[in-house]
Amino acid sequence: MLFKKIKSEGLAHFSYIVGDGSEAAVIDPRRDIEDYLNVVKNEGFSIKHIFETHRNEDYLAGSYELALKTGAQIWHADDIFDYEYGKPVQDGQTFSLGGLTLEALHTPGHTPGSFSYVLYTYSGEPWIVFSGDALFAGDVGRVDFLGEDKLKETGGKLYDSIYNRILPLGDEVILCPAHGSGSVCASAIAGRDWTTIGLEKKLNPQLQHDSKEAFVEDIAKMLEYSPYFKKMEEFNVKKGPMTSNLKDPQPLKPEKFAQIRKERDLEIIDCRMVESFASAHIPGAISIWSEGLSSFAGWFVDPDSEILLVTEGEYPEKEIIYLRRMGFDNICGYLGGGMVHWHMSGRDTESVTTVTVQELCNILDENEDVFLLDIRSEDEIASEGEIENAVNIHLTQLPDNYSRIPENKRVYIFCGSGLRSMVAGSLLKKQNYNNTVVVLGGLEGWTSTTCPIK
Amino acid sequence: MLFKKIKSEGLAHFSYIVGDGSEAAVIDPRRDIEDYLNVVKNEGFSIKHIFETHRNEDYLAGSYELALKTGAQIWHADDIFDYEYGKPVQDGQTFSLGGLTLEALHTPGHTPGSFSYVLYTYSGEPWIVFSGDALFAGDVGRVDFLGEDKLKETGGKLYDSIYNRILPLGDEVILCPAHGSGSVCASAIAGRDWTTIGLEKKLNPQLQHDSKEAFVEDIAKMLEYSPYFKKMEEFNVKKGPMTSNLKDPQPLKPEKFAQIRKERDLEIIDCRMVESFASAHIPGAISIWSEGLSSFAGWFVDPDSEILLVTEGEYPEKEIIYLRRMGFDNICGYLGGGMVHWHMSGRDTESVTTVTVQELCNILDENEDVFLLDIRSEDEIASEGEIENAVNIHLTQLPDNYSRIPENKRVYIFCGSGLRSMVAGSLLKKQNYNNTVVVLGGLEGWTSTTCPIK
Amino acid sequence: MLFKKIKSEGLAHFSYIVGDGSEAAVIDPRRDIEDYLNVVKNEGFSIKHIFETHRNEDYLAGSYELALKTGAQIWHADDIFDYEYGKPVQDGQTFSLGGLTLEALHTPGHTPGSFSYVLYTYSGEPWIVFSGDALFAGDVGRVDFLGEDKLKETGGKLYDSIYNRILPLGDEVILCPAHGSGSVCASAIAGRDWTTIGLEKKLNPQLQHDSKEAFVEDIAKMLEYSPYFKKMEEFNVKKGPMTSNLKDPQPLKPEKFAQIRKERDLEIIDCRMVESFASAHIPGAISIWSEGLSSFAGWFVDPDSEILLVTEGEYPEKEIIYLRRMGFDNICGYLGGGMVHWHMSGRDTESVTTVTVQELCNILDENEDVFLLDIRSEDEIASEGEIENAVNIHLTQLPDNYSRIPENKRVYIFCGSGLRSMVAGSLLKKQNYNNTVVVLGGLEGWTSTTCPIK
Amino acid sequence: MLFKKIKSEGLAHFSYIVGDGSEAAVIDPRRDIEDYLNVVKNEGFSIKHIFETHRNEDYLAGSYELALKTGAQIWHADDIFDYEYGKPVQDGQTFSLGGLTLEALHTPGHTPGSFSYVLYTYSGEPWIVFSGDALFAGDVGRVDFLGEDKLKETGGKLYDSIYNRILPLGDEVILCPAHGSGSVCASAIAGRDWTTIGLEKKLNPQLQHDSKEAFVEDIAKMLEYSPYFKKMEEFNVKKGPMTSNLKDPQPLKPEKFAQIRKERDLEIIDCRMVESFASAHIPGAISIWSEGLSSFAGWFVDPDSEILLVTEGEYPEKEIIYLRRMGFDNICGYLGGGMVHWHMSGRDTESVTTVTVQELCNILDENEDVFLLDIRSEDEIASEGEIENAVNIHLTQLPDNYSRIPENKRVYIFCGSGLRSMVAGSLLKKQNYNNTVVVLGGLEGWTSTTCPIK
Repeated sequence: MLFKKIKSEGLAHFSYIVGDGSEAAVIDPRRDIEDYLNVVKNEGFSIKHIFETHRNEDYLAGSYELALKTGAQIWHADDIFDYEYGKPVQDGQTFSLGGLTLEALHTPGHTPGSFSYVLYTYSGEPWIVFSGDALFAGDVGRVDFLGEDKLKETGGKLYDSIYNRILPLGDEVILCPAHGSGSVCASAIAGRDWTTIGLEKKLNPQLQHDSKEAFVEDIAKMLEYSPYFKKMEEFNVKKGPMTSNLKDPQPLKPEKFAQIRKERDLEIIDCRMVESFASAHIPGAISIWSEGLSSFAGWFVDPDSEILLVTEGEYPEKEIIYLRRMGFDNICGYLGGGMVHWHMSGRDTESVTTVTVQELCNILDENEDVFLLDIRSEDEIASEGEIENAVNIHLTQLPDNYSRIPENKRVYIFCGSGLRSMVAGSLLKKQNYNNTVVVLGGLEGWTSTTCPIK
Repeated sequence: MLFKKIKSEGLAHFSYIVGDGSEAAVIDPRRDIEDYLNVVKNEGFSIKHIFETHRNEDYLAGSYELALKTGAQIWHADDIFDYEYGKPVQDGQTFSLGGLTLEALHTPGHTPGSFSYVLYTYSGEPWIVFSGDALFAGDVGRVDFLGEDKLKETGGKLYDSIYNRILPLGDEVILCPAHGSGSVCASAIAGRDWTTIGLEKKLNPQLQHDSKEAFVEDIAKMLEYSPYFKKMEEFNVKKGPMTSNLKDPQPLKPEKFAQIRKERDLEIIDCRMVESFASAHIPGAISIWSEGLSSFAGWFVDPDSEILLVTEGEYPEKEIIYLRRMGFDNICGYLGGGMVHWHMSGRDTESVTTVTVQELCNILDENEDVFLLDIRSEDEIASEGEIENAVNIHLTQLPDNYSRIPENKRVYIFCGSGLRSMVAGSLLKKQNYNNTVVVLGGLEGWTSTTCPIK
Repeated sequence: MLFKKIKSEGLAHFSYIVGDGSEAAVIDPRRDIEDYLNVVKNEGFSIKHIFETHRNEDYLAGSYELALKTGAQIWHADDIFDYEYGKPVQDGQTFSLGGLTLEALHTPGHTPGSFSYVLYTYSGEPWIVFSGDALFAGDVGRVDFLGEDKLKETGGKLYDSIYNRILPLGDEVILCPAHGSGSVCASAIAGRDWTTIGLEKKLNPQLQHDSKEAFVEDIAKMLEYSPYFKKMEEFNVKKGPMTSNLKDPQPLKPEKFAQIRKERDLEIIDCRMVESFASAHIPGAISIWSEGLSSFAGWFVDPDSEILLVTEGEYPEKEIIYLRRMGFDNICGYLGGGMVHWHMSGRDTESVTTVTVQELCNILDENEDVFLLDIRSEDEIASEGEIENAVNIHLTQLPDNYSRIPENKRVYIFCGSGLRSMVAGSLLKKQNYNNTVVVLGGLEGWTSTTCPIK
Repeated sequence: MLFKKIKSEGLAHFSYIVGDGSEAAVIDPRRDIEDYLNVVKNEGFSIKHIFETHRNEDYLAGSYELALKTGAQIWHADDIFDYEYGKPVQDGQTFSLGGLTLEALHTPGHTPGSFSYVLYTYSGEPWIVFSGDALFAGDVGRVDFLGEDKLKETGGKLYDSIYNRILPLGDEVILCPAHGSGSVCASAIAGRDWTTIGLEKKLNPQLQHDSKEAFVEDIAKMLEYSPYFKKMEEFNVKKGPMTSNLKDPQPLKPEKFAQIRKERDLEIIDCRMVESFASAHIPGAISIWSEGLSSFAGWFVDPDSEILLVTEGEYPEKEIIYLRRMGFDNICGYLGGGMVHWHMSGRDTESVTTVTVQELCNILDENEDVFLLDIRSEDEIASEGEIENAVNIHLTQLPDNYSRIPENKRVYIFCGSGLRSMVAGSLLKKQNYNNTVVVLGGLEGWTSTTCPIK
């Protein structure tokens, strides 16, 4: 028996390979498919089926490219696909993998045509359920994609899917959702990457409601919708662009980098950590540290725009993968040799002021008239605590709220750890705010000292 | 400075990456380009140029695919290319790589438009010459591709290229040819993979002639021409098929394998070692051990035919690379789990008798009327010794000479080591010879005992 | 959260890495510890604890070497250890890993001091239980290590451990045992590598008994005890030899190989597949195919003896790992270049006759007086069917039963697939049986044809 | 034939593997021997000999550990070794590797007992010479290790070694020295990593002298002697500590990191790039960027001291290798999660001011009374140009010259690129200079603008 969970950091996306005999299936493949291919090569399996639990909105599926490489059949959920390259899956349809059987289970709610897939043991008992974005560890899928007026309806469908189709499979059944903690596909997925139906019944807050009405009431809410979602939905229903023919981004000398930046309207993403960006960065660059790309590039960079990358000098292997998973295919190069070569070419840089929480304590004691900007989300504020006198604008909403930030005051930016604050800092810099200060360590640093929180 | 030799075993092909600053060039890239891409990624280089020393006949160049991935410019030698994807190089043309300069040197002979490329030191002295198939370690390029009537002319051109253009660069210049020992592009390339012009002047037998006439006399001869060469020449002047979109051969269960074999007219290549094939193989399979594919698949398998592979059970990673380098793209699968699964499915197998040299000695002493078939090449026989009473048919000529082999006698097949003998054994088996015996250890085993050699 | 299962093929051994924050623990590390070290390096974790579920008898634990490399604390179960390098774990003892807690649970039976370890969720519910050799998927641990007269007592203890300590954790708890299907630590572990307590309550045959008595009755039996177990037990309670200082086995030329074999009393293990060994092998070699080493080297090779290996020519990386896991540290080399070099040196080989099941059908029809030797285990025969007229001697018992095998008859050897038959064939060859025949495809091949089974 | 150059970045050290048949030799192995072992495993070779060209002073040889792993014989040059583990090589001694022969050539000068090794072709001509630290590309070995009063004598010996033993081998012979550009074992090794004797005769400035006297006059000078050299010399003549048993440095939480730093007198090396260190670093840390460790850790860190590392968060794989090559074995951990976790723990940091060259131009125009500190070497200043009004103290001499740097002025630190300036900046910070400024881009940045150089 073959069973592997492939985790995509950043997106917090889980895909799975499951197989028996020499026949395997992949559930919800991501766009970079090498890991699936290597597993089956090493284990002597052939991928027979590719199952999608739903049209995804937060990443580009690798279904078509994987099918081309292996000859597998794609089974689409949600009936809106370009069926030249796959077939629609049907409720109750079964599939054999060696001696095992998988069954498709229609579990709408997150999307109208969402499916779960149940793997049965050799003797026919429900064993593992791949629940897509219906049921997660600690949360359920968001139901707001069809709009606010459909919230009650989609919420009700999700309730039925979970309570009537998934939970009855049994407490002992292993639950394999499509996302883990950190995903944008639910509010608050828990950190337990491995779980069972029984554990969720005990621990998942959304499964503790007294009634369907209470459940729907709780989950029927609009969540943030990242601008790149729209493109993902489009790409995923069509064949989508293939990665195997994309050009590798090349290292660019400072002169070339500067020239391209001047000639073309493109985005520079600086993927270095906050301290590096603070000291010196190329004017106009946005700061998104590497591990933050999956969460924030989609908010602040147009998926169709050309992109130049800055790293500490190395080839941006990881960064390219993260960006391509989200459809950012126009990466035209990176700064070869890193910033030291930029400096050596005598070119201009800019900086962003930082402050440690200890320094900030002293400053605040001096009663300077400052503006405290808290860019954390409502959920974070609720669970971690508010900052006294701070104005809250969630990072993702910043571009729509520049007018709320004064230009004539020193602006201290807070997040949880200081990482996102520099994203905000770089956005404000591009809006000509020259008096912003990133608080290193963020709220967690702040609470480690003796400064007061309301 | 970046300088790497990438050796392709089997084809005995050498390609090179050379670079300075952050600019690199690849000389004569092979079809599987991952190694080049990885080197430049790790070293922070960008591939600016791709140089071809000539249209190649023994492998598929990776120029186009590499250009697509990197944006490099292809520079073709021999003026017969599809110039949508590259440009013709000119004699004397120079190219910069960081602080270094490369110069194109027209060195015809092997092909009419062959080029060498000279890398100069920072101060302008000739440093390294990439001589393509003009000058090798221990040999010179073959000159028979234009036909027998042009031999003198092409031989003369090669003499001029070597004596007037390459050797004058200086004894101290490092010589980097396109092939090493074992290549079919010359008769007898030496085993010294690293050499200099001075070493060749001392040691290369073809550079010891007294006159141009003697040189031409010696080298102007027709060599064997493998059937797949024609296809390579065609593919290399066009864009050629891309590997990145080829389907991965899948493991096939015995039933499926048997069914495909029955329905379609295809070739089964068994890549296992001689002992395995001897014991039990799928009826109709040709035996070519993995490391022999580059040399022999081109002779006995049509590049357009569909292929099924048999290995010891593992994924045929290496075998697929070897075959694709030669344009064998229709590999439709391999026997999943290896022969043990074939046996477990209760299917038929065939075997080929083997004999150790010690057993053979005894047999020959008994004066049985046997047929000794020596499948080594003329060159090998000349250098390693003849076998008494053996009939010589070089392996590559076997299909044209079945009539010379008796059907009613026991046929003992000899090569150098016993590897190629099984290729012959499998070919004869397909011709319904059922009385063939492969001599394990071949001539080398034979000479290790006290049996007589004429 | 970090959670990885590391599977050791052959031994069918599972070890686990679990962690939170930056603190990790390894449960039952195997001897080759690179995988653990790489996981924690890549994930930014530090191994704080090493937990042993019991003194192992089937493999060498890597606890000490892992502790030396990481500074982790070893927690031994079974109170017989050299406590210079570890500490005894106590029932109920708890350990923190970041925000998670692990609790030690005394679960005797398989060994007197066996422990399970329960991982709790952040909110304190039982989540995952590492059950060692107490409870497996589809089976329970063997209880015969203290001898036949203690069977009832140990069986009773195991019942209490499972029923009073493990099962009450809850159906929804994920069960992580120390072995999977194919292990010698139980009779018949199931193929479902991932399971839960609830699934086992449903599916595990040993958990379907009506009473403690019935349970004990069923499991209280003596199983086979491989001779190397004794050495493993000894090594595991002491520090045990370190692998990092072991010499790498070197390739040996045929002359050197032959010389060593002549001078020293050592074992040649030929790891090639059955067909290769059949055709030609070095006289005196035992045939154990690579994937069979973990199961059979311990039965037929003394762990203290010197070993020479034969492969198809490649470095025996995998084979060395398999052998070292079982304490075979005296591997003094392998045949460089494989058998082709042996043949080329003109040396002697031997062969073993094979037969396909189709050929065998014909032979049996001819009513020749043959001896059918079935070397499968009693369990296999019970589940897969008996062979008419065959004498059954389980492979592991063969050395004690040579007298039951006639020397003057042709002996046809059967196993499931033909792999083990060659082990038997090579053992009989060493006993001077020259009339043995290995049945390719074994019983599975046999049943695929129309030949009769009783 | 097997021939590979293994380059150790940082140390600019070259070692070589050469082999034929299945026998290989390693020349001057570095301490981390995995690359050698992997090459021979993959290629089917056995390491028969380990040749040292001299007792090394700049790195720890891996000879003993490699011998232990492979059974190879160590051949020491310089007759001061612990001969329990190796043998002294003799002038003229020959060694066979398959069909090839290597000859030891006594070539004193760099050290009294330095040896070169000549590899001959199959037909007996000199082919490749491994010249150790006698002759490099573009330079010759330093001769100052025996002290100033022996300079003429050692210089003369080196002349004889080069002119009477190495150069006569022939222009066409490939030259393989033990170091490349950037090594501390000579003044100015050239960037051409591949060379021949003929190329050196043409291009090496030290081979252009008219007489032995002129040669000696030019090269007989004292060079810088890094404090760790002494330890390397000692370790290399003894068995030296083994790496295989060293503990892996573990990630440390900020609390633990801070606690260890407080309790023990140890060094914190911050390996991040200059911009990161500038913004925020742990008080007391020395800045040495990763690729600078090989050159500078030996100057500013005692090889016996305990070390804590700071990176951008990842496991310091490369940094540990670099440090261990130089004998820094007491690396007790690294900051887990990087500086962001330090900030989140609310702990103190310090910063170093930086300035771009453009900003500096403006500042200098304002005629502020500043101190320009140029930390480049004399050679660099000679070749790249002096900075007007700057005081020159080579970085390595800084600790002996703090008194020359004013405490009451702003100190602008210059190097070539800005990397080394931060090393100086961090050293001055530890001396309580709080008014230092690192010039980003260094002299190269400076000369890219229009600011004046004298």
